[in-house]
Amino acid sequence: MKRYAELAPSQRTIMTPGPVEVDPRVLRALSYPILGQFDPEFTSYMNDTMEMLRALFQTSNQWAFPIDGTSRSGIEAVLTSLIEPGDKVLIPIYGRFGNLLYEIAERCGAEVTSIEKEWGTVFTPEEVISAIHREKPALVLMVHGETSTGRIQPLAEIGKACRELGILFVVDAVATIGGVPVRTDEWCIDAVIGGTQKCLSVPSGMAPITYNDIAAKKINARKTIERGLRTLLDSNTDDIINRPPVIRSNYFDLSQLQDYWSSARLNHHTEMTSMLYALREGLRLVLDEGLDERFTRHRLHESALVAGLEAMGLTLYGDPSCKLPVVTCINIPDGIDGESVRNMLLNSFGIEIASSFGSLKGKIWRIGTMGYSCRQTNVLQLLGALEAVLIRHGASIHTGTGLQAALDVYEQK
Amino acid sequence: MKRYAELAPSQRTIMTPGPVEVDPRVLRALSYPILGQFDPEFTSYMNDTMEMLRALFQTSNQWAFPIDGTSRSGIEAVLTSLIEPGDKVLIPIYGRFGNLLYEIAERCGAEVTSIEKEWGTVFTPEEVISAIHREKPALVLMVHGETSTGRIQPLAEIGKACRELGILFVVDAVATIGGVPVRTDEWCIDAVIGGTQKCLSVPSGMAPITYNDIAAKKINARKTIERGLRTLLDSNTDDIINRPPVIRSNYFDLSQLQDYWSSARLNHHTEMTSMLYALREGLRLVLDEGLDERFTRHRLHESALVAGLEAMGLTLYGDPSCKLPVVTCINIPDGIDGESVRNMLLNSFGIEIASSFGSLKGKIWRIGTMGYSCRQTNVLQLLGALEAVLIRHGASIHTGTGLQAALDVYEQK
Repeated sequence: MKRYAELAPSQRTIMTPGPVEVDPRVLRALSYPILGQFDPEFTSYMNDTMEMLRALFQTSNQWAFPIDGTSRSGIEAVLTSLIEPGDKVLIPIYGRFGNLLYEIAERCGAEVTSIEKEWGTVFTPEEVISAIHREKPALVLMVHGETSTGRIQPLAEIGKACRELGILFVVDAVATIGGVPVRTDEWCIDAVIGGTQKCLSVPSGMAPITYNDIAAKKINARKTIERGLRTLLDSNTDDIINRPPVIRSNYFDLSQLQDYWSSARLNHHTEMTSMLYALREGLRLVLDEGLDERFTRHRLHESALVAGLEAMGLTLYGDPSCKLPVVTCINIPDGIDGESVRNMLLNSFGIEIASSFGSLKGKIWRIGTMGYSCRQTNVLQLLGALEAVLIRHGASIHTGTGLQAALDVYEQK
Repeated sequence: MKRYAELAPSQRTIMTPGPVEVDPRVLRALSYPILGQFDPEFTSYMNDTMEMLRALFQTSNQWAFPIDGTSRSGIEAVLTSLIEPGDKVLIPIYGRFGNLLYEIAERCGAEVTSIEKEWGTVFTPEEVISAIHREKPALVLMVHGETSTGRIQPLAEIGKACRELGILFVVDAVATIGGVPVRTDEWCIDAVIGGTQKCLSVPSGMAPITYNDIAAKKINARKTIERGLRTLLDSNTDDIINRPPVIRSNYFDLSQLQDYWSSARLNHHTEMTSMLYALREGLRLVLDEGLDERFTRHRLHESALVAGLEAMGLTLYGDPSCKLPVVTCINIPDGIDGESVRNMLLNSFGIEIASSFGSLKGKIWRIGTMGYSCRQTNVLQLLGALEAVLIRHGASIHTGTGLQAALDVYEQK
């Protein structure tokens, strides 16, 4: 019998667009003993979590709860519950994660139309709104912050146009929630998906979502009680003709998950105890810091990072007018092996930064300043290490200037 | 701004069929700092986990990895990847979780036929095999251990019959894995789903699965690379005519998850770091104890529990010849309010036991002896508390005998 070593992960400085470092208080919450899923203490933690999610999403929606899975589980739960096979869906794509929305919507049986924008920029509201008028979709799906390209898409005008036309507007805010404003109600977004492992600084494993009554109405029209929990009365509702088709997934059926998260507490899955502890604690820390204060903090460390990188002579990728504050994309200097730089940062300095996908692979590095990782010590350590590693790789950069520029930002704040 | 109290869950003695108590060493693993998902340290933990899962499932299958979700996520991943819409599926049902298989298979587009057995007993192999000959399904789906009724279904002969007929045999071993033998290869099971929060004593949040090359062949025939990660070469494979229909879920697409869990490391979701730590540590403890030793331990504490309950004058529910060793179902004595007993156990003694579902609600209590909860101190504390609570509820039971009978079992071992 092979014997496995005890788990002993190294301490890393994680400056990627996620997963990022987790506050020690959240790590501690993960280590607390288990409660049963219907223990009143546990259900009170579930209720706290729903309340705090409403504050996070800046919404008065009734429904705000996590899906038990990684971020894309939240996307799939919302799409598979909202999209009926044959529904026409419009997806404006400006990076990899728009393609993921396409992939998932297509598997839900949607008739998908996409419009595409060159990577490194975003859509003007008019471009999207004119496509909406042309395509007349039932749903519009968009990514708020594209970590693949480091861009952020303005949403308010698009949301308003959708609301006026009676079109459902669904937003993937996995990368932005907790780091930059996501104003669900003000921007007329019908359903939003957040992520835990980025600006919330909770480990990957849950996907907080929220949706309003308009979305809930469409979901509830497709509702069935789980076989094995149905009473005769419930079964009869199945016989109603002209019902929309049943949701294709049990795991992601929001009409059933609502019953689990409401006072009905109708059994569905067994809630992830430890992850729920972590999410509740992570949300508590976010709201304790204050949303506005948190967004300001993210802006500050982004400024210091950018000042340092530019003082070193590095250039940023993409249209600066739509830069995502929590992800900074750097053009890899000519002749430099981007992966070799990343490996040396990790192996010699314990610092992780990211590469990118598709056509950007090998062309840019991506640095995240998200959540608990978004702090002065991390930004300064990274800038110092990057300078040393770039010198070691023979890059022609300005030396001794990057950290000074970042320190200037911190002293002027 | 409302302020939320710090998380401070009570210490419970959890004697339900899950979620059960977690070994402190696993809780500690949950609190370790995050690693990036492609950090070589982290991918080595992923590889360890796959190796240990093969040992747990007693299989030489290449594919053994967790699905990132609660137990039913594993069921849905296997079914949605294996079932093509229109596939004929046979489901022998003898409790609630057989109905869940039906529910999920139906949503996958299967043509489902079920045979049903009175709750409290299981099928003879002949009953299932004759239905297989009659129905000629493409897949047979069965629950190994039904926690809703506390029964265990023998599988070896059914597996052999399916293999001979070229029928895929899929088993839900959520309740049994790590507590009683699950011999994947010996019993000719093509795909098995396990659970973490029961006999493995890892918190709910991952669903370990394994499947063999026969299953993999069917899954791979439906493979597509994720949109946004495809190269031109990959896209061309989409144009092949007469391909079976694409898997309806991206999150649960085993053909994509394989690429993530293999050395290809093709990006899919962001693996749940903390849960993976917990699963790896939990599996390490299981294999360190030894599978056979672990099964024997589960039998011992079941014996002591049953001896104690019967000495008290309580009667067990269901056919004893197919009793699930890790769940003991007790008939609630006439005139006793089962929920009141459960509440007093929880509120006065900090001990949780379970009720059941559907027609058994209010009729039986269910006591789990699973994983880390399955130990002498817990069994003895429960028996003492139950006697006191039953006396307090006016039940006519034998007093002073339950604990003595259990102690006898422990002294004779």
